[in-house]
Amino acid sequence: MNISEYIRDINDFPKHGIVFKDITPLLGDYDASLECLEQLVKLVGDKKIDKVVGMESRGFFFGTLLAQRLNAGFVPIRKPGKLPASTYKEPYSLEYGMDVLEIHEDAIKKGERVLIHDDVLATGGTARAACNLVKKCGGEIVQCNFIMQIDFLDGAKKLKNYEIATLLNY
Amino acid sequence: MNISEYIRDINDFPKHGIVFKDITPLLGDYDASLECLEQLVKLVGDKKIDKVVGMESRGFFFGTLLAQRLNAGFVPIRKPGKLPASTYKEPYSLEYGMDVLEIHEDAIKKGERVLIHDDVLATGGTARAACNLVKKCGGEIVQCNFIMQIDFLDGAKKLKNYEIATLLNY
Repeated sequence: MNISEYIRDINDFPKHGIVFKDITPLLGDYDASLECLEQLVKLVGDKKIDKVVGMESRGFFFGTLLAQRLNAGFVPIRKPGKLPASTYKEPYSLEYGMDVLEIHEDAIKKGERVLIHDDVLATGGTARAACNLVKKCGGEIVQCNFIMQIDFLDGAKKLKNYEIATLLNY
Repeated sequence: MNISEYIRDINDFPKHGIVFKDITPLLGDYDASLECLEQLVKLVGDKKIDKVVGMESRGFFFGTLLAQRLNAGFVPIRKPGKLPASTYKEPYSLEYGMDVLEIHEDAIKKGERVLIHDDVLATGGTARAACNLVKKCGGEIVQCNFIMQIDFLDGAKKLKNYEIATLLNY
């Protein structure tokens, strides 16, 4: 099964000139989701993982599935004001201006081994902010794990110090 | 194992006077998450489910896990402007004013058997909007499935035509 057949291109979303990679057909198909999960698990290999961190919102889908499959806890990284307890905050650049991501301060214990997951690695801004948040908690980043990587946006450059693993390159 | 021990009360979140039920400690613990998932699966029993629908964002966590466990596809219901393809829209009441939820028009086929999942049933506004969206797609709602129900908010009243199943009552 080729999981790329379950990812559809949506032109001009969220804005003109952008081709959005929509994973909802993948999520909507049990067999394709399972195949994607198995392939993501293979990327992790035999590395021990204590926590899987997923970024709001599309990182939550396969992030929770990965956590269960890897016998790990799941930790959401969220937009500002969504996490109810004490958080660390990390700003990151958007095309225009800045935004902030948050993690619960007690979500990861010092020395825990962390897998960071999101659906797409684009510019790498979100992923780098996530890495910084995990480091603030004292976690050790084992791998940054994505379904897709958009090569021309060069997000890997922002994650130079980390292992990057991806299923599909565009 | 008592999963309620992994749900913490956060006072005055998101606003004064509200006690927020935070499931992040549950998500962060592999064994507690697995136990919660097993209990949610038990609520479904032997009902055949084609699609699990989860509401943004906290319905995504156990929604995706439930879908994989039930051999079903997962369908996200999202806030306005987040789903990239053609959507059905459904307004619902908030404490002050209205908001809208969306579902992809092609996410559920006519006659498919649907489990609706969210973490908390509170006033029932979100859940009823989700049910209406599933019906617009032609889906058949088999159960509305929640981790928690906040009894005094009487959300069950808004879901009178549907089976409601919940693990914890507050």
